[in-house]
Amino acid sequence: MEILVVGSVALDSVETPHGAVQDVSGGSALYFSIAASLFAPVNVVAVVGRDFDFARINFVNQRKINIDGIQVVDGKTFRWGGRYYQNYSKRDTLYTQLNVFENFKPVIPERYRHSEYIFLANIDPQLQLEVLRQVKKPRLVVLDTMNFWISGKPVLLQQVIKKTDILILNDEEALQLTGQNHLLTAGRQILKMGPRYLIIKKGEHGAVLFGPDLYFSAPAFPVDKLIDPTGAGDSFAGGFLGYLAKTGKSDENTLRKAVIFGSTVASFNVEDFSIRRLQHLTRSELQERIKKFRELTRY
Amino acid sequence: MEILVVGSVALDSVETPHGAVQDVSGGSALYFSIAASLFAPVNVVAVVGRDFDFARINFVNQRKINIDGIQVVDGKTFRWGGRYYQNYSKRDTLYTQLNVFENFKPVIPERYRHSEYIFLANIDPQLQLEVLRQVKKPRLVVLDTMNFWISGKPVLLQQVIKKTDILILNDEEALQLTGQNHLLTAGRQILKMGPRYLIIKKGEHGAVLFGPDLYFSAPAFPVDKLIDPTGAGDSFAGGFLGYLAKTGKSDENTLRKAVIFGSTVASFNVEDFSIRRLQHLTRSELQERIKKFRELTRY
Repeated sequence: MEILVVGSVALDSVETPHGAVQDVSGGSALYFSIAASLFAPVNVVAVVGRDFDFARINFVNQRKINIDGIQVVDGKTFRWGGRYYQNYSKRDTLYTQLNVFENFKPVIPERYRHSEYIFLANIDPQLQLEVLRQVKKPRLVVLDTMNFWISGKPVLLQQVIKKTDILILNDEEALQLTGQNHLLTAGRQILKMGPRYLIIKKGEHGAVLFGPDLYFSAPAFPVDKLIDPTGAGDSFAGGFLGYLAKTGKSDENTLRKAVIFGSTVASFNVEDFSIRRLQHLTRSELQERIKKFRELTRY
Repeated sequence: MEILVVGSVALDSVETPHGAVQDVSGGSALYFSIAASLFAPVNVVAVVGRDFDFARINFVNQRKINIDGIQVVDGKTFRWGGRYYQNYSKRDTLYTQLNVFENFKPVIPERYRHSEYIFLANIDPQLQLEVLRQVKKPRLVVLDTMNFWISGKPVLLQQVIKKTDILILNDEEALQLTGQNHLLTAGRQILKMGPRYLIIKKGEHGAVLFGPDLYFSAPAFPVDKLIDPTGAGDSFAGGFLGYLAKTGKSDENTLRKAVIFGSTVASFNVEDFSIRRLQHLTRSELQERIKKFRELTRY
């Protein structure tokens, strides 16, 4: 079954203790779609400027990634610069140049509208609502957001959350959204806002899946060579939703496994800058690590 | 098989968002022995002042806890005061009155010396070494320590660590001990200091067990009514070592299960002030939560 993602394609500049890269491929929609395409076909909606060289993502032809929905408009591509410090627990945004993203109006191409699985990557909730108006009867809507929208557009965000099946947040966002200071309390409160399920990502501490009478805790895969965490959240979402789309199921056991697949895909993503690792990730490498994952929690 | 614990018996005053208590029963040896005695007989070595009313721990008669080794000396019992804040992630020590603990010299009674399992609770590494000199061929030595000894007595601490089978630290202590800023790197480095296994406790994020080719991650049990985290670490150690002593095994599968038992016992401890919850904890309540624990990680 097919997945639709609406989000950003960006040129990132990233500094980490392991080095620095400039104007490399990034953006939520790109990370997500590479991850999800390991499992199912992905339809991408985003926007880039005329400066964007599509040759840098020509690998999409070998994957089931459809990029017809990427609009090319006058102006420069969205650019983001960030810096990570020694223990990677803190990230500073050095700059955000919205550029063509500033006037982005997502238009879902006709042949995308039947997509059963929708990932609303982290963009203005106003745009996320517009996406939902354009799609036909999706089976599952998965939503990401960030602190900027939680504080900046709380009313619109709540409208999107109400239409969401599965909300994915990190720990700080979950606390901010609820004004709570305890993740368990925050998680339960968020479920009352509408979504059937909630995933709270905790970085190196793994992820927790909340549902009605469900609390599932998955560790992060211990990564030896942590290089660049950029895109880890979107890779997680891609592995998670990709697995659901592949199996066509969304019962609790499948959701638990999907969290493990998401975590595993994300653990590869952080092993290199930009999309480099995901781009060359094979199904058999993934399967091997999925097996190792079981050793982490078996008892 | 029998367990020997050497540590503190204290009178604690604790303030939390849920209330405050004054001069209640506490101390590492007390928390540990109540937890461990759910599984195996425990021999306690500690010191109290003449002001200590043994009636407050007369429940030890119903448990397999031997307190012959608690010295009663002139002076006042060790007192500790602490305060927890809204999200319980931060704790301030308000005061530490060592009192009789200042001149404590652990003497292991003859009939304790055959104990197969030793828990060196968090005391001066000099004293921990003296304990090890007095015991006969223990099967397993488990060590706890804290930031104060890591920075204050690093050389002596290294000597104890070399003689330790399983070291238990929290995340901050593991980073401090190694000067690293990544838990995975820190964990591996600590294994090179001597111990066969290492447990790093991460509070609400659970615990990780490191060994040669072993990395096991256990979540914390999600506690609805977090009241007072004091003694959680020692309760964990008690459940952990108690389970090992009960089974008489220390293979990797048993160690994994022991971590789950430790986490589960600790999850009860934090549900009330002082030792109140542990004191009345039954084997059947424990077993019920152990079953629920599996639901947390099953996939």
